[in-house]
Amino acid sequence: MSIQQDNRFQAIISHAKEYGFVFPSSEIYDGLSAVYDYGPYGAELKKNIRDYWWRSMTQMHDNIVGIDAAIFMHPTTWKASGHVDNFSDPMIDNKDSKKRYRVDHLLEAKADQLRENGDAAGADALLASMDQLLAAEDFAGLKQLMNDHKIVCSVSGTANWTDIRQFNLMFSTQLGSVAEDADTIYLRPETAQGIFVNFLNVQKTARMKIPFGIAQTGKAFRNEIVARQFIFRMREFEQMEMQFFVRPGTQMEWYNFWKEERMKWHTSLGIPAEKYRYHDHVKLAHYADAALDIEYEFPFGFKEVEGIHSRTDFDLKSHQEYSKKKQQYFDADIDPATGKPYGNYIPYVVETSIGLDRMFLLVMSHAYDEETITKEDGSTDSRVVMRIPAKIAPNKLAILPLMKKEGLPEIAKELLNECKPHFKCFYEEKDAIGKRYRRQDAIGTPFCVTIDHQTKEDGTVTIRHRDSMVQERVAMKEVRRIVMEAL
Amino acid sequence: MSIQQDNRFQAIISHAKEYGFVFPSSEIYDGLSAVYDYGPYGAELKKNIRDYWWRSMTQMHDNIVGIDAAIFMHPTTWKASGHVDNFSDPMIDNKDSKKRYRVDHLLEAKADQLRENGDAAGADALLASMDQLLAAEDFAGLKQLMNDHKIVCSVSGTANWTDIRQFNLMFSTQLGSVAEDADTIYLRPETAQGIFVNFLNVQKTARMKIPFGIAQTGKAFRNEIVARQFIFRMREFEQMEMQFFVRPGTQMEWYNFWKEERMKWHTSLGIPAEKYRYHDHVKLAHYADAALDIEYEFPFGFKEVEGIHSRTDFDLKSHQEYSKKKQQYFDADIDPATGKPYGNYIPYVVETSIGLDRMFLLVMSHAYDEETITKEDGSTDSRVVMRIPAKIAPNKLAILPLMKKEGLPEIAKELLNECKPHFKCFYEEKDAIGKRYRRQDAIGTPFCVTIDHQTKEDGTVTIRHRDSMVQERVAMKEVRRIVMEAL
Repeated sequence: MSIQQDNRFQAIISHAKEYGFVFPSSEIYDGLSAVYDYGPYGAELKKNIRDYWWRSMTQMHDNIVGIDAAIFMHPTTWKASGHVDNFSDPMIDNKDSKKRYRVDHLLEAKADQLRENGDAAGADALLASMDQLLAAEDFAGLKQLMNDHKIVCSVSGTANWTDIRQFNLMFSTQLGSVAEDADTIYLRPETAQGIFVNFLNVQKTARMKIPFGIAQTGKAFRNEIVARQFIFRMREFEQMEMQFFVRPGTQMEWYNFWKEERMKWHTSLGIPAEKYRYHDHVKLAHYADAALDIEYEFPFGFKEVEGIHSRTDFDLKSHQEYSKKKQQYFDADIDPATGKPYGNYIPYVVETSIGLDRMFLLVMSHAYDEETITKEDGSTDSRVVMRIPAKIAPNKLAILPLMKKEGLPEIAKELLNECKPHFKCFYEEKDAIGKRYRRQDAIGTPFCVTIDHQTKEDGTVTIRHRDSMVQERVAMKEVRRIVMEAL
Repeated sequence: MSIQQDNRFQAIISHAKEYGFVFPSSEIYDGLSAVYDYGPYGAELKKNIRDYWWRSMTQMHDNIVGIDAAIFMHPTTWKASGHVDNFSDPMIDNKDSKKRYRVDHLLEAKADQLRENGDAAGADALLASMDQLLAAEDFAGLKQLMNDHKIVCSVSGTANWTDIRQFNLMFSTQLGSVAEDADTIYLRPETAQGIFVNFLNVQKTARMKIPFGIAQTGKAFRNEIVARQFIFRMREFEQMEMQFFVRPGTQMEWYNFWKEERMKWHTSLGIPAEKYRYHDHVKLAHYADAALDIEYEFPFGFKEVEGIHSRTDFDLKSHQEYSKKKQQYFDADIDPATGKPYGNYIPYVVETSIGLDRMFLLVMSHAYDEETITKEDGSTDSRVVMRIPAKIAPNKLAILPLMKKEGLPEIAKELLNECKPHFKCFYEEKDAIGKRYRRQDAIGTPFCVTIDHQTKEDGTVTIRHRDSMVQERVAMKEVRRIVMEAL
């Protein structure tokens, strides 16, 4: 990342803290690595993004219903999904520094170094060897590769390494009601399995016909070794997932449908399309027959914010095997090829999976703007303005009496009481009006209304638009309608 | 609980499963004890309750802001809060059956038995001894008391007990990035501490002046030994908490304020006041100087759904001690007694804490009704109707074309497209209309609209009211307004 981009990213992180969007978790205890808390404006923004997604998925599609499954699940779920056996990274510890590393990260860093020194062929050869050894789970071979390239710990500077071993990324805990029989359970590493194990319960109780979807938002947990980039990769994070169940053979049609549909969702927020791109997966996960990422140009480059995956019947089939319970759907529609109903089958699944925290960071990255303002007298000033789409802004309207006297707060409170049942308002009566405007810009409030002496005379107020800073005089009784129309 | 009440409770549990409100977690793997998943209608109802609380707390009170803190917190948080040392129950295991019991539960059951056998004095004496020994943490004494009363395991029938030991109710896991330094952390047993550790961050960034509140909803986890009564006591559950920070000495005034205010919230949903009562705590927790429960008459009796607690400055003071960071507020208001500002102090806290899952069960208990209907010809019929308050009902409107042909579905879809951006609709075109009405009754949909041939002629539809079953003919273009007015 360039210095300019890095500065911008650092500025966003500082702004998030200073203006109550995101705090390091347990900050008074010096924080907890890769865990964050959402402050007053962050909590509202996060909720608004979640609600916007939920509404667009469940309320606007009558063939998608929601569920809210628990974080705790039966441990066999994670055997069936493959997470117990496969959700792990090969790790190595340096015995001197006690630091733990992902082996592929160490080797990739070495390859980068070779490339920088002009040895592109050497870098390629190293990566090719690594991929081969990883695929074969040949840990001795990987350690030999590290030795061959004289890879040392950046802290201790030594090559005094332990053996390589797999480190599962799931958090485990003990569910104990009976002394000899405390079960090891996991914090779910993805919300998707909560949908799969409930597939038949949902299909039957909500009487869904294929094709149909099940949507869910909720926390997931991964014991990331290298968690980084602020809220981009956290150990505790929130997913917004939808699993769409389709007739086998139609999955590519739906994969393409959701690829388009999800991009529309992103641009419907007014975020420019050119900041997005698709990235097709070349290597597919064991469960997928097609997969792509929707990437956004964050200050640190294009990165995944959402994944669209054609998961085949892998999950349902595997749950059927482990649970010994049929995971089939009876399709009464007539197959034109045979003239008979399609009959029983295990549906195929197309998944859309978006990280709520990443979407939050995306909105912050899009919104953050340091603007230079030329005043009427030719002098310049600057402001930080969060151009958060009005639909999801934490506060919709700030109501600001010009002075804390002469009846102005009373009039302002009238307007507050009129508007607050309809949208989130903010009220403030202290400090100079210019300073109050700047604070609302920094929070991303799309509208400010000032109540002044003229309001007492003619019932008009000044409404100020965040993005343009244009101010206009309107009747106070029009304010509610103006704001609601913008939402 | 009487047989009648017990039947009613069982009927509600069955209904919750059959109509997609609540499923046992991971049911295909035979469930996970005391963990539940919310199905399509349950997820919507739960979200609607949460949103109704959030809106009433944060949007309607301009001196309350929200946060969204992580489930993972720095482990010292739980030293400071007292949970590491005190959040435990004395447990005993039977060596033959391997069953684990809470000692107080065993002794209380014995006291009940004595009382039933007419020995009320013996029961009182037993409970008094128990309380004394529990307070003194005299585990040998407690075991002796069990021996004296010949308490046996109900499974093995033996008194072959282990020693008594404390069993902490917090779930723990390992947060590991460095080999020798994996931290034991806990899943939060309450959301409140996420508010306390962020007190100054929130107060400063949102520029709050005392008195003010911080609201939060989120998951909490307790390794309950005896989890029971469906979703009433779960190991994973969701809290909706608000901590209100006040000037020391004013806490009783605010305690009484919130006692009233919270009861108003409950009755604002249209749930009868006589189903509620206050229960003052006699024994106070170590952090409280006053506490009460808001109890609701569930099918299994009056039980706590919400707690109002005057928590004093216990938590902030303790965090100040453990973190060595001042947790003070500067109060610039003038103290009439001294003529000077109140100055620096650690605020007192009044807490309102409601269980979202309990509130869900409350709504289900209130709503569930088996009604006998007398028809015009004098014969009777019956229906199950969920009288869920319209504001929080999962679906607001069902749109039902009388037949799946002759253009009726097309007209119905027009209405659907008009209404669905505004509220949650349900569309169904299969089965006899009576059957479809019954299903909507069972889900709790307040309005059904039927599109028939007359609609094609004069643009009117039949709107049916869930509770009264009254049907009226209205213009289709009026439907949206009618539903929105009821919300």
